[in-house]
Amino acid sequence: MPDARTLEAFPTPAESPFVVEHFADEFTSVCPKTGHPDFGTVTLRFQPRPAGAGGTCVELKSLKLYLQSFRNEGIYYEAVTNRIRDDLAALMKPAWLLVRTDWRGRGGIRSVVRATHGDVPQAWQQ
Amino acid sequence: MPDARTLEAFPTPAESPFVVEHFADEFTSVCPKTGHPDFGTVTLRFQPRPAGAGGTCVELKSLKLYLQSFRNEGIYYEAVTNRIRDDLAALMKPAWLLVRTDWRGRGGIRSVVRATHGDVPQAWQQ
Amino acid sequence: MPDARTLEAFPTPAESPFVVEHFADEFTSVCPKTGHPDFGTVTLRFQPRPAGAGGTCVELKSLKLYLQSFRNEGIYYEAVTNRIRDDLAALMKPAWLLVRTDWRGRGGIRSVVRATHGDVPQAWQQ
Amino acid sequence: MPDARTLEAFPTPAESPFVVEHFADEFTSVCPKTGHPDFGTVTLRFQPRPAGAGGTCVELKSLKLYLQSFRNEGIYYEAVTNRIRDDLAALMKPAWLLVRTDWRGRGGIRSVVRATHGDVPQAWQQ
Amino acid sequence: MPDARTLEAFPTPAESPFVVEHFADEFTSVCPKTGHPDFGTVTLRFQPRPAGAGGTCVELKSLKLYLQSFRNEGIYYEAVTNRIRDDLAALMKPAWLLVRTDWRGRGGIRSVVRATHGDVPQAWQQ
Amino acid sequence: MPDARTLEAFPTPAESPFVVEHFADEFTSVCPKTGHPDFGTVTLRFQPRPAGAGGTCVELKSLKLYLQSFRNEGIYYEAVTNRIRDDLAALMKPAWLLVRTDWRGRGGIRSVVRATHGDVPQAWQQ
Amino acid sequence: MPDARTLEAFPTPAESPFVVEHFADEFTSVCPKTGHPDFGTVTLRFQPRPAGAGGTCVELKSLKLYLQSFRNEGIYYEAVTNRIRDDLAALMKPAWLLVRTDWRGRGGIRSVVRATHGDVPQAWQQ
Amino acid sequence: MPDARTLEAFPTPAESPFVVEHFADEFTSVCPKTGHPDFGTVTLRFQPRPAGAGGTCVELKSLKLYLQSFRNEGIYYEAVTNRIRDDLAALMKPAWLLVRTDWRGRGGIRSVVRATHGDVPQAWQQ
Amino acid sequence: MPDARTLEAFPTPAESPFVVEHFADEFTSVCPKTGHPDFGTVTLRFQPRPAGAGGTCVELKSLKLYLQSFRNEGIYYEAVTNRIRDDLAALMKPAWLLVRTDWRGRGGIRSVVRATHGDVPQAWQQ
Amino acid sequence: MPDARTLEAFPTPAESPFVVEHFADEFTSVCPKTGHPDFGTVTLRFQPRPAGAGGTCVELKSLKLYLQSFRNEGIYYEAVTNRIRDDLAALMKPAWLLVRTDWRGRGGIRSVVRATHGDVPQAWQQ
Repeated sequence: MPDARTLEAFPTPAESPFVVEHFADEFTSVCPKTGHPDFGTVTLRFQPRPAGAGGTCVELKSLKLYLQSFRNEGIYYEAVTNRIRDDLAALMKPAWLLVRTDWRGRGGIRSVVRATHGDVPQAWQQ
Repeated sequence: MPDARTLEAFPTPAESPFVVEHFADEFTSVCPKTGHPDFGTVTLRFQPRPAGAGGTCVELKSLKLYLQSFRNEGIYYEAVTNRIRDDLAALMKPAWLLVRTDWRGRGGIRSVVRATHGDVPQAWQQ
Repeated sequence: MPDARTLEAFPTPAESPFVVEHFADEFTSVCPKTGHPDFGTVTLRFQPRPAGAGGTCVELKSLKLYLQSFRNEGIYYEAVTNRIRDDLAALMKPAWLLVRTDWRGRGGIRSVVRATHGDVPQAWQQ
Repeated sequence: MPDARTLEAFPTPAESPFVVEHFADEFTSVCPKTGHPDFGTVTLRFQPRPAGAGGTCVELKSLKLYLQSFRNEGIYYEAVTNRIRDDLAALMKPAWLLVRTDWRGRGGIRSVVRATHGDVPQAWQQ
Repeated sequence: MPDARTLEAFPTPAESPFVVEHFADEFTSVCPKTGHPDFGTVTLRFQPRPAGAGGTCVELKSLKLYLQSFRNEGIYYEAVTNRIRDDLAALMKPAWLLVRTDWRGRGGIRSVVRATHGDVPQAWQQ
Repeated sequence: MPDARTLEAFPTPAESPFVVEHFADEFTSVCPKTGHPDFGTVTLRFQPRPAGAGGTCVELKSLKLYLQSFRNEGIYYEAVTNRIRDDLAALMKPAWLLVRTDWRGRGGIRSVVRATHGDVPQAWQQ
Repeated sequence: MPDARTLEAFPTPAESPFVVEHFADEFTSVCPKTGHPDFGTVTLRFQPRPAGAGGTCVELKSLKLYLQSFRNEGIYYEAVTNRIRDDLAALMKPAWLLVRTDWRGRGGIRSVVRATHGDVPQAWQQ
Repeated sequence: MPDARTLEAFPTPAESPFVVEHFADEFTSVCPKTGHPDFGTVTLRFQPRPAGAGGTCVELKSLKLYLQSFRNEGIYYEAVTNRIRDDLAALMKPAWLLVRTDWRGRGGIRSVVRATHGDVPQAWQQ
Repeated sequence: MPDARTLEAFPTPAESPFVVEHFADEFTSVCPKTGHPDFGTVTLRFQPRPAGAGGTCVELKSLKLYLQSFRNEGIYYEAVTNRIRDDLAALMKPAWLLVRTDWRGRGGIRSVVRATHGDVPQAWQQ
Repeated sequence: MPDARTLEAFPTPAESPFVVEHFADEFTSVCPKTGHPDFGTVTLRFQPRPAGAGGTCVELKSLKLYLQSFRNEGIYYEAVTNRIRDDLAALMKPAWLLVRTDWRGRGGIRSVVRATHGDVPQAWQQ
């Protein structure tokens, strides 16, 4: 069962703004309606607050274990995406966060869901 | 014969804005002029209204059956696209909706048609 | 010899704005200088005026025959592109039209030419 | 030795704005430091001034010979790019010009250099 | 051990603005936590100040040696990226600088980090 | 309902051996179990007997109509493939025939079926 | 826990030889050493015995459920592959069977394992 | 109208066996039934006889003009392929010749035709 | 310094023949002539002897550490490849082993080296 | 002017058979007829004789300089290929050698030439 308390963060190493992306290509959860497994990719994209403002970055190994904890969870595409956004926003309180999930699909329909927190930083448009 | 009444929606799970895309790669209808089948892809992209404002998302299985119902319908590219836009806008009353159809083409010409409803949300530009 | 009078249009099926693209991958004309054939792709992208304003869309079969009529015409890249733009703008009087030609090239140089009519509609930026 | 006097231009065929791109995939010059050959691609992108304002387009065969004249020239990436921009800006006096060079690289580092003249026209953003 | 003093720069050859990109596909450092090697790509993108303002460009061979000096350094993704940004900003004092690192990843998660200095120049948006 | 009598053939134009392939990317039939549509590609590959031995080639337009006649037929992957092989072998009595079907799949499993008639000719191994 | 008794087969529809391939892109099991999930693709390729000899084909839905049953099983790459080969060989007693597993990998090493049963049929070499 | 007399050959430069391939990506002829243009690629692959045995290679410019001469010829796929094979076999009397034509297709069906002369040489299998 | 004694093997789990491939995309060593790092991919492909004949498979984690031990070793492409082949052949005494190294190259030349042990098994040709 | 005397070889490091490939992506020479530059890729593939039989491998830097020496040489595709084959066969006296040249082409026709020396070794078929 997913538990955001396993997530850890470390202090951001810079005052200057920078942007981090993590791509987890091996996400799986379970469709609550059919019981069949869903497979997808989870993308995180965030700008931590500056070091002086207490900015943090999610630690990679804890992120991996957090994402693995959805393995046998029955949960819909939209709910997974909003939940990961909420858990990471609570953990890092980032200047900006985007969570995107890409699903391999069922019955000939593939889906993508994206949820955001905060405003897109200028550094991303480069 | 296409019937929008088979479409179902479920309440959106979040107050925060998010964007959903569905890609149906196996769409087929019939050319009303020649009687030959047309093959294409239908892409939906929408931002539901917030949960508190009664926002809904189209249910995937009902979407699949709705799209399959065009299988033996004689209808032009432009009309299919506008019809799907109208049916889904009526169903979900979304903050934003884009319907895009990509057609494999006839006689060496491929086509793409896109119809929209509402204004592009900020979340999409990330 | 190209003749814009073979082009036909049909009334646009919607009041709401939408955008149409046609990709003709098999265009050929003749270089007026060397007499060698040129090969390329012609892309049309347009937003018809609303139905209530008399908006029309170019009919696909007539477009195909119009493009085939350049087959033995000696004409430069830039002139082909501007001519197609002028002929289609006169036919449809669209809210927006872009004509793009991609040429396979000669002597190690490939070329692309694009000519426009009207202003880019908001629907295109989605 | 490169000589801009071999470049020729012809009058632009239209009053309406349009944009031309040329891609020369077979560019080679010599590294002035090591004497080893450099290989790359040269991309031109320009909007001629309108015909009524004396706008011109570079002629393709003269462009090909001009680019070939760098074959045994010892010249750095940055200097090649700025020189081609200067020579073509002087020849065509275009409304806009971008010269981009993509280099296959040395010692595991590939490079791209881009130099511009004038302001990006609206037609390019389509 | 990385040492920014091995970096060299040469005077920029032009008054007009231009943008340079370098792609180093063979970067490697060591994870300070596990001791396992990390592999990635380093991308630099910068606009030197004009020649008259003392603008400089990093010299390619010194850049290559500088990047190689991280080979046995234990350092995190975020720190590498910010350090390269700081070292190159100090060396060139560029009008704009973006450093992007793409990492092959560990445990099914790939990462990208980007850090910037200065404002995005207009020339980059072409 | 599929009817092999709509298939037509024309006399092969050569005494020398040659091989023909046809790729129909827009095949669709119906799953007899679920009633959902199946989508796939049909590939034919054959060597006609020599002209002097009465060799024939399937006519393209009749092939297209024959394949379209499966559109609303409930039939399994394996049965479609064997049926097309039998119908075309009966029509052309070719020296060699391979029918391959590639299916987009259901529930995360894609499938390919291939059925043959006669021996692989030497000309195919080139 | 994987259980081969859930696998079902149906009688092969033809006397003539034919070859079937199934590609399951969403396979997952668990590494017995680390407890981390493994992700991969399972490919089956087989030639059933002729109908008259009691040949059978594995039924797709039962195959899907059988593969899903490995989801929480701790099992090595080599053992998974040999086990699927054994279970399917026992079920179908095919003339030929190849099982191939492609694993996304751990620590920078991707793996492929293939196990076979019977001799490669002539039909496969076409 | 195609005329094999425009084809020229030059003496092969070697006694040792070697293989030559030419890929003409811009072939076009006309469908004799519908009058619509056909577009495709012509591939030649041959081993000339040794120099001492009078071996020759087709000259590239004459090949280009020969292929261009089909531009307005009404001729079927199979006939084009066999005719080019016959004309080039008569010109070069090669140890081996393969002519392959790849057609962009009509009505959703793409085609490939290949015709040969002589036996596949050992040098090709490397 | 590379040391084959860190390699470990485990008993093969099957009597039936099967083939294993490992792809290590992140190999690096040092050029003994220039001191610059070399980057490449190492591919292993082997068939263990049957379990009853004492067949073994290389253990993945020990393989990873063994390959990492070349990181600061000065050694040529050909010598790396032959050494890995020798070390793994001594460890596993496999029925067949192929070691292939793909190098990113220096000065515009990429290289591939492959060394083998034993005879190619039938299972590989499927 | 090309001079095979600049080529150097070093003794092969193994008694066991192995195969080496070098890919030089930046080859250029001059067309003797038109004076225009030709661009292509040169691939070498060879098996040295065993060390005990005096086998040697071409040294990479000398190969690079040898290939660069064709830069301003007027020479046809077929002659370049046969000459490189002859020069390398004389240098290394390999058990097997294949030289393949891929040319970017002129006037819409790309070409590939391959010349060989000795028999294809078993190790290549793996």
